[in-house]
Amino acid sequence: MRQSQLFTKTRREAPADEVSKNAELLIRGGYIQKEMAGAYDYLPLGLIVLRKIENIIREEMNAIGGQEILMTTLQDKTVWEKSGRWDDTVVDNWFKTKMVTGAEVGIANTHEEPITAMLTHFVNSYKDLPLYVYQFQTKFRNELRAKSGIMRVREFLMKDMYSFSRDEKEFKEFYEKCAEAYIKIFERVGLGHITFRTIAAGGSFTTGLTDEFQTISEYGEDVIYVDEKKKLAINKEVYTDDNIEKFGLEKSKMVEKKSIEVGNIFPLGSKYSDVLGLKIRDNNGVEQSIIMGSYGIGLGRLLGTIVETLSDEKGIVWPESVAPFKYHIVEIPSEKTEVKEMAEKIYKKLGEENVLYDDRDLRAGEKFADADLLGMPYQIVVSEKNMSSGKLELKNRKTGEVKMIKEDEL
Amino acid sequence: MRQSQLFTKTRREAPADEVSKNAELLIRGGYIQKEMAGAYDYLPLGLIVLRKIENIIREEMNAIGGQEILMTTLQDKTVWEKSGRWDDTVVDNWFKTKMVTGAEVGIANTHEEPITAMLTHFVNSYKDLPLYVYQFQTKFRNELRAKSGIMRVREFLMKDMYSFSRDEKEFKEFYEKCAEAYIKIFERVGLGHITFRTIAAGGSFTTGLTDEFQTISEYGEDVIYVDEKKKLAINKEVYTDDNIEKFGLEKSKMVEKKSIEVGNIFPLGSKYSDVLGLKIRDNNGVEQSIIMGSYGIGLGRLLGTIVETLSDEKGIVWPESVAPFKYHIVEIPSEKTEVKEMAEKIYKKLGEENVLYDDRDLRAGEKFADADLLGMPYQIVVSEKNMSSGKLELKNRKTGEVKMIKEDEL
Repeated sequence: MRQSQLFTKTRREAPADEVSKNAELLIRGGYIQKEMAGAYDYLPLGLIVLRKIENIIREEMNAIGGQEILMTTLQDKTVWEKSGRWDDTVVDNWFKTKMVTGAEVGIANTHEEPITAMLTHFVNSYKDLPLYVYQFQTKFRNELRAKSGIMRVREFLMKDMYSFSRDEKEFKEFYEKCAEAYIKIFERVGLGHITFRTIAAGGSFTTGLTDEFQTISEYGEDVIYVDEKKKLAINKEVYTDDNIEKFGLEKSKMVEKKSIEVGNIFPLGSKYSDVLGLKIRDNNGVEQSIIMGSYGIGLGRLLGTIVETLSDEKGIVWPESVAPFKYHIVEIPSEKTEVKEMAEKIYKKLGEENVLYDDRDLRAGEKFADADLLGMPYQIVVSEKNMSSGKLELKNRKTGEVKMIKEDEL
Repeated sequence: MRQSQLFTKTRREAPADEVSKNAELLIRGGYIQKEMAGAYDYLPLGLIVLRKIENIIREEMNAIGGQEILMTTLQDKTVWEKSGRWDDTVVDNWFKTKMVTGAEVGIANTHEEPITAMLTHFVNSYKDLPLYVYQFQTKFRNELRAKSGIMRVREFLMKDMYSFSRDEKEFKEFYEKCAEAYIKIFERVGLGHITFRTIAAGGSFTTGLTDEFQTISEYGEDVIYVDEKKKLAINKEVYTDDNIEKFGLEKSKMVEKKSIEVGNIFPLGSKYSDVLGLKIRDNNGVEQSIIMGSYGIGLGRLLGTIVETLSDEKGIVWPESVAPFKYHIVEIPSEKTEVKEMAEKIYKKLGEENVLYDDRDLRAGEKFADADLLGMPYQIVVSEKNMSSGKLELKNRKTGEVKMIKEDEL
């Protein structure tokens, strides 16, 4: 993409009300724009990153047998009344609205109830299970205070998967499979080295413990104790001697860290399936409960965590897998037409889907600052000086390493 | 995809409350499921079709210079108050909700105001224009009555593009370019032969006429007069002798047809840009108004129109460009292992992304009925009988034409 065609512009300063590093850098780079407190627009570069993250998650969900669907945002009150979660004292961050007819409807807070009710049209035999269904769907949370930039917002795109299993054993097997898929996802988006499966407190559906995935960050809101070698952590909430022992860890090796929750996997038992009438008949015709699980990743939060943890003092440092473009061609304006010709040549050679080409008529210093702020993995500097020695400058944004290369080495 | 793995099932009958052909067939095929009146879930096969339509539209919008973004669903009341459209008597189908703090927020009805306000952060010089921004974003309309299946709903995915031009001439040029792109889109999704650019009444922003794109359908809610040869129509609303003459048409050649509006393009003048403070300075530093246009296509409505107009008495007939899969392998269960082996072989050969493979243990009649209902363009029947003559049966779903072919001819 030609940078001259991109409508967004970089800014030297972020708006004064943005105190989090992720929103500050993303707004300065023109990746996102605040629409209102807790709601951000994705601008062209930001949307490319969001879609790349989405595709990585999609591939891993498909690999473990997930079937993708898209549920509605407007939700029927009656399915929520069955589970008791329509009540604002039970779920305290609902957005609700009213139809012209006066009837109340919910605005998707989550989808356990609607998805379970939907499946009653399709599932009734043990042969229909196990079943894994997921979607990328916008969730709405009526938070009292939005904070941490795009980390805790009122509206966000979420990958939510739900598993439907015939018994606890089948459920557990998938739960572990999904945990492995999550590890792959965090590795692929560049957070593998600082993200840990973390033992956490069980919710209302399980007497046992559950799992979170936590990324170490000094700006995190959670506190975890990490065994880096074993790639396992325990959330402060349940950091007891019993649990340390139970998971084969040693207190002396656990290091306290602040962290950001980037995903969770959660046993739901048969609470929702039972109250919503989703049952199966086993091979003897006897009615059986269905064991459910839910598996969430907030895409904006993951994007924000990448920025929060991998950026440096100059700006964003995108991992190649999610970068809007792999290369940033920085053409240093020159009277010599060869400079522009060379820049155009390598732009075409590398392909417009792989390159942000800074073809703007700006000073070199501004262009370098923009390239560092925007954070493409490789900067290719095309200048009169470099060309006089028959070379191009290839800079690795992350390491700062600079190589002089010939055009045909690209 | 293996049909045995698909959680949806076909149904013989649609729910009694679905009277429209599009929803009836789509629900029977397991493409969609009604969540509540006017809100439908997209199930795996339906979501594939929706995404294929989305990609076709995206390609055509990018081809005319569109930049894709994603605005929020929650909308700040203050930007709507500036244009006067927050008022429920002005826009009578708003969904609104309240924050915990008590402040009212809008739930995206459309995006003229928010997108114009957002651009004030980036546009201020004539050099920043022209600019074309679009998104695929869910719109919410508080309709008194949802009707016509997925045609008139309370929640739907829409492609909305907005153009920002320096003057009327620049605007008109893009307006025509977008009209041509729309024609390409309707051709690519298989509706080209029955879709017409249609002269329609101007809205409140123009004294002139505007354009709609109407697809001929006996179930349509609109009435248009069509000149098939000139590929032009006039909406009944403005079907006057003056307009017939103005557009070089002849009354004797105009044929009255019922039709479905599948797209519209619309001049907005400078109403929104002026009230929201989006202005440019020209090359003399003088402040100028910005001329806007909006360009909409509802994706669900387009999908519904394809089903409504191209299906037959047996079921859906997907054009290849938007079909969930190009091929449907119908394996007729047999004691001979060669049948399954052959089916598996061609499934692998054609690629799982191109094939729905009916590997279920069902009677041939049920399988044929399902294949016709689901509507993939080509059915490949693998049976003992066909194989005994060394052949496969290839059936064209649309024409019904059957060819006996050898496996290596596929």
